[in-house]
Amino acid sequence: MTSVPPAGPREGAGQPFRTVHWVGDAAGGRLRMIDQTLLPTEFVEIDCDDVESVWWAIKRLSVRGAPAIGVAAAYGSVIGARSRGTADAATVREALRTAASRLRTSRPTAVNLFWALDRMEAVADAAPPGDGPALLDRLLAEADAIAEEDRAMCRAIGRHGAGLIAAGDGVLTHCNAGGLATADYGTALAVIFSAHEQGKKLHVFADETRPLLQGARLTAWELAGRGIDVTVICDNMAAQVMKEGRVQAVVVGADRIAANGDSANKIGTYGVAVLAKHHGIPFYVAAPSSTFDLSMPDGSGIPIEERDPREVTEGFGRRTAPEGVGVYNPAFDVTPAALITGIVTERGVIGPVSTETVRAVLAAPPASS
Amino acid sequence: MTSVPPAGPREGAGQPFRTVHWVGDAAGGRLRMIDQTLLPTEFVEIDCDDVESVWWAIKRLSVRGAPAIGVAAAYGSVIGARSRGTADAATVREALRTAASRLRTSRPTAVNLFWALDRMEAVADAAPPGDGPALLDRLLAEADAIAEEDRAMCRAIGRHGAGLIAAGDGVLTHCNAGGLATADYGTALAVIFSAHEQGKKLHVFADETRPLLQGARLTAWELAGRGIDVTVICDNMAAQVMKEGRVQAVVVGADRIAANGDSANKIGTYGVAVLAKHHGIPFYVAAPSSTFDLSMPDGSGIPIEERDPREVTEGFGRRTAPEGVGVYNPAFDVTPAALITGIVTERGVIGPVSTETVRAVLAAPPASS
Repeated sequence: MTSVPPAGPREGAGQPFRTVHWVGDAAGGRLRMIDQTLLPTEFVEIDCDDVESVWWAIKRLSVRGAPAIGVAAAYGSVIGARSRGTADAATVREALRTAASRLRTSRPTAVNLFWALDRMEAVADAAPPGDGPALLDRLLAEADAIAEEDRAMCRAIGRHGAGLIAAGDGVLTHCNAGGLATADYGTALAVIFSAHEQGKKLHVFADETRPLLQGARLTAWELAGRGIDVTVICDNMAAQVMKEGRVQAVVVGADRIAANGDSANKIGTYGVAVLAKHHGIPFYVAAPSSTFDLSMPDGSGIPIEERDPREVTEGFGRRTAPEGVGVYNPAFDVTPAALITGIVTERGVIGPVSTETVRAVLAAPPASS
Repeated sequence: MTSVPPAGPREGAGQPFRTVHWVGDAAGGRLRMIDQTLLPTEFVEIDCDDVESVWWAIKRLSVRGAPAIGVAAAYGSVIGARSRGTADAATVREALRTAASRLRTSRPTAVNLFWALDRMEAVADAAPPGDGPALLDRLLAEADAIAEEDRAMCRAIGRHGAGLIAAGDGVLTHCNAGGLATADYGTALAVIFSAHEQGKKLHVFADETRPLLQGARLTAWELAGRGIDVTVICDNMAAQVMKEGRVQAVVVGADRIAANGDSANKIGTYGVAVLAKHHGIPFYVAAPSSTFDLSMPDGSGIPIEERDPREVTEGFGRRTAPEGVGVYNPAFDVTPAALITGIVTERGVIGPVSTETVRAVLAAPPASS
């Protein structure tokens, strides 16, 4: 574990922190990630050089956000791939498979996790027999490619989405779909950052996002660091700021999107979508094509992680509910496509949202950078 | 300040704790209240024998809930009334007026505060000149009457509302409108308690109610103590449990109700009402006639208290948002009458809700106990 001085993001297009990245070469390097559980009061990076520590970092949300989880898992599988030595490619391949199986159990909802590990396994499967170190290098290159594509994806989502936001808009977001959720500057926040870079003056309302407060802790930190006006509200205040006419658009991320556009995202997103509809406010989802799970015709089959009830009752060091009462702590919910005005992807904006429009946009070639 | 052993509520009709009550006689007695900021982990009662400590107990939410605030303020004004001695009635009356002026500044939204103090001042105004101790006794009797009427009101609301809840229902409530918000067993929770006493098996979902968690801390404590199944959820999970079909009714309290039925209640209530409408779930407000402010034609004029931003960012002993970001912390919102299925009062159920139906029910004689 490495501790570095606080270094919040600064104004400008470049991303001033690295959420998840590899340090060193394939044989001896390690995965470095910001421990997001400690923000905004402490900026600490953790180094992982075994699969269990990567698994645990994902499980405990040191790294979170669907794209960032995918990148972390890809690098984690490289660490696993070398764990039995690199005597030959078969050994590396088997070790990779074991690591991938383990990492797949860390969190169930974000499809990017499975998508990234599938890519890593496909590389291993396609490798010629023999040279173990060469395969390990090839695996690191694939993980780097996933991270690099994620960066390009963030920028493309920003470009496509910025036009949805007008100068002077109030924009509400939920949870964190920013740089801390990706390898670059985010999905939902990419839309906001890109609009801001176009010179549009915005005001963002960040739902604090119980139980783990990613909105208050992470989104507000990212926005303030880039000089964007942000107001933190409790989740239950979103309806009030909408009623006051202070919100012209809602933009959120997603953890898995079904073929028809039904979108799983952080718990509370569905409620925000209902509130947006009631107030006539457009509701946008921003996510890369890797977040779509076309094997699911609609959102009813998306597995929803239920997390430890102590996140609700003991999240702040004191018990906030009586012992023995029931607690329900789903980590995600599914917003039906009918409540979504548009889905901003790196290939363009899907809207209105339907199985047909999803298919059409995802079939388009990736936008050039 | 008095510390007593934890004594949570127990099953049965009698209220096993006293939220706010007077101990002793008018000349030497004091106001005793549960310090609700410490529940559910500590049960501590505080004794007040000066107006400032009553003011502060209301301000910092040691005592909260519109009816309980009214009772506390009434007793607090008795304490103020004797503060200059009881040489004659004029001295008592003047001291009462000073105390009432001060207590009126403690919190702006709950109308019961003003209503109770108006009643106390009317008693003083009507008193004959001369006998100071007699006026003080008369004032204590009036405060006792306000408390006693509050008890009868809770039971009558329970009787009128119980029929709205069917056996097997899931009931969602927000904040705390229970015994801890009144002098007896509540308004919204009276409906639930009364239905439970009729033998109906219920399941209650308690929104934790950020920022101060009255739902998790207080409502869950009251319900569990009476043997009613309760599940605590974060506020942003209400939409999900509704979508899952687990909520058949919403019941909340109110802090001020305009002549047309628009109802101010704890922040987040309005959002819950929108969600209930979207899911076709009836939404009930339970409140006594003392919560109506017929001087306001609709809810647009109800003053909404905005509280310290640190309740949002530092409520749990660690900072949960970056320094310097904006924070919005309205303590209440207003739910339009159009979203309210019915208002349960001690005089009957108002529904559909309109200026005419409000007037008709409030004009009815109080229900007999």
